[in-house]
Amino acid sequence: MTDVMAAFRPADKPLDRIMELVRGDMGAVDTILSDQLNSSTDLIPKVAAHLIAAGGKRVRPVLTLASARLCGYEGDNAVRLAAAVEFIHTATLLHDDVVDGSATRRGKPAANRLWGNKPTILVGDFLFSRAFQLMVETGSVEVLRILSTASAVIAEGEVMQLATANNLATTEADHLAVIRAKTAALFAAATEVSGALSGAGPERTEALRVYGDCLGIAFQLADDALDYAGDAGATGKELGDDFREGKVTAPVLNAYAAARDDEERAFWKRVIEASDQQNGDLDRAMTLMHRDRAVERTLEDARRYGAQAKAALEIFPASPLRDDLQGLVDYVVDRDR
Amino acid sequence: MTDVMAAFRPADKPLDRIMELVRGDMGAVDTILSDQLNSSTDLIPKVAAHLIAAGGKRVRPVLTLASARLCGYEGDNAVRLAAAVEFIHTATLLHDDVVDGSATRRGKPAANRLWGNKPTILVGDFLFSRAFQLMVETGSVEVLRILSTASAVIAEGEVMQLATANNLATTEADHLAVIRAKTAALFAAATEVSGALSGAGPERTEALRVYGDCLGIAFQLADDALDYAGDAGATGKELGDDFREGKVTAPVLNAYAAARDDEERAFWKRVIEASDQQNGDLDRAMTLMHRDRAVERTLEDARRYGAQAKAALEIFPASPLRDDLQGLVDYVVDRDR
Repeated sequence: MTDVMAAFRPADKPLDRIMELVRGDMGAVDTILSDQLNSSTDLIPKVAAHLIAAGGKRVRPVLTLASARLCGYEGDNAVRLAAAVEFIHTATLLHDDVVDGSATRRGKPAANRLWGNKPTILVGDFLFSRAFQLMVETGSVEVLRILSTASAVIAEGEVMQLATANNLATTEADHLAVIRAKTAALFAAATEVSGALSGAGPERTEALRVYGDCLGIAFQLADDALDYAGDAGATGKELGDDFREGKVTAPVLNAYAAARDDEERAFWKRVIEASDQQNGDLDRAMTLMHRDRAVERTLEDARRYGAQAKAALEIFPASPLRDDLQGLVDYVVDRDR
Repeated sequence: MTDVMAAFRPADKPLDRIMELVRGDMGAVDTILSDQLNSSTDLIPKVAAHLIAAGGKRVRPVLTLASARLCGYEGDNAVRLAAAVEFIHTATLLHDDVVDGSATRRGKPAANRLWGNKPTILVGDFLFSRAFQLMVETGSVEVLRILSTASAVIAEGEVMQLATANNLATTEADHLAVIRAKTAALFAAATEVSGALSGAGPERTEALRVYGDCLGIAFQLADDALDYAGDAGATGKELGDDFREGKVTAPVLNAYAAARDDEERAFWKRVIEASDQQNGDLDRAMTLMHRDRAVERTLEDARRYGAQAKAALEIFPASPLRDDLQGLVDYVVDRDR
């Protein structure tokens, strides 16, 4: 595994600079997130704040704010959209945790474990509605079109994932379609809305959409890789979580495709398709992945999509922010958490 | 129970006439509902169509269409909004069935029983997003404002209901707040959007909102009454379903408030708060309700709100449609299913 770990070149200075640039706006986003949780029932702020306060990387709202800056936008609506994007993301996480029966999220007990499935589903619905209320405040139907479409695609992606789960016959193209729908669609919407909001014109708005789409794919591939190569303390999830859930992710598909005989294929079928796992199975999976460079290939794919994300931004004039958004791609791909 | 049944005066001629008036539009709504279920995954149309095809009363989309007619609207967008309203309603039913662990819905096995909780939650999310996409097609931010707000209120109402469930200390005002949020909010939005869409002006739009709000409250109170007085074959749910789930509904609160001694209060606490029920408990509950007119009082409340719904429409010039929308109130309150 050491060579895989060596592949992680922390490149978070672009992120630091972007975060610094949008720090004031992110403060305004946090205020909106907190204000919008006000409700006549105290369970809603409790359940939602548990997850939102746990932090996470806030990559999506930062992307919305930075994209708006890149387009020269100076109005008040970017922070509303950034908050809406984070609410949609949070709502999908809450529903995911119910669907997956998750035990932990962001290193803390998952909401469904603390409050049960019922409030977790309903608070997700609430946040989703609040997100649309925030978009309405911008007065832009185009923004609402982009994010309502993304939301439908995300739900479709989650349903597709149910069909591919535990199924090693999932093709690379099917797997990519799932990743694109369940993860990249919100990244793409998060950046595209800023183009629409700023009146940046169709070409730049489309470039921002492509940037978010490719970055989201790269992000999810890196996430899948991390599950077999990451630092459990840093990710807040245990190494092999995906493995134990029998999740069909890119490293697993790579390893299965590279299996050398029926015995190895039978191993993958047992542990992933039948979810019949014993002590030592994770070690063996990691050994096979190492031998066949399954994780590295996943990261190579992530870097390829990352390169496409960077290229999309070339339509914008050179600027320190454009450089940093391109640099952010490396951070997302080669992060260790 | 016979006197309660006698109180049901089927008055469905107004509904028949309204249905006839909007028949063509409802055909267009059904086409949209069916077209919008198209998806790259076949599980979504399957799960959604199961519920949508089961029919239900389609009261909400009919209200949207009829309200638009009342305002003289002649464009294409009323059918889109009617479909959006029905999608939001369907999404909440799917999530409700997961939250309540329902066995049946509209006389058929509930989606969660046939496909499990995961697809049921996710298809709900999908329909919710599709509803917003349909609203976006109308190009009206005001419509999006009304329905996103209603959606947030509905989710809040569902969360409030978790807190009042199995709790006989629920006050009448608390119970009304829950009913208003979880049921009346969508009725109110279904009628208000037509005013907004038609450019009917603030006074008429507000009158339509009040009509929907009061009608929704009356509808839910009648629904609660039906559970203790309805015809199981016609409602598609068994008599006493709410009772078996220990639901705190208006008839139960009325009966509990009228309890004559500690033994009776202890009975209600055991069957509703502790959900500890034995053979004969439903019969005893019905006997106590009969003695204290608990169901009839609920229906009296429903009629009072119904009268307010009718009064709200007086701002519109007299017309056969206005008469029928007022007559619809009686049908909703005194229906037998």
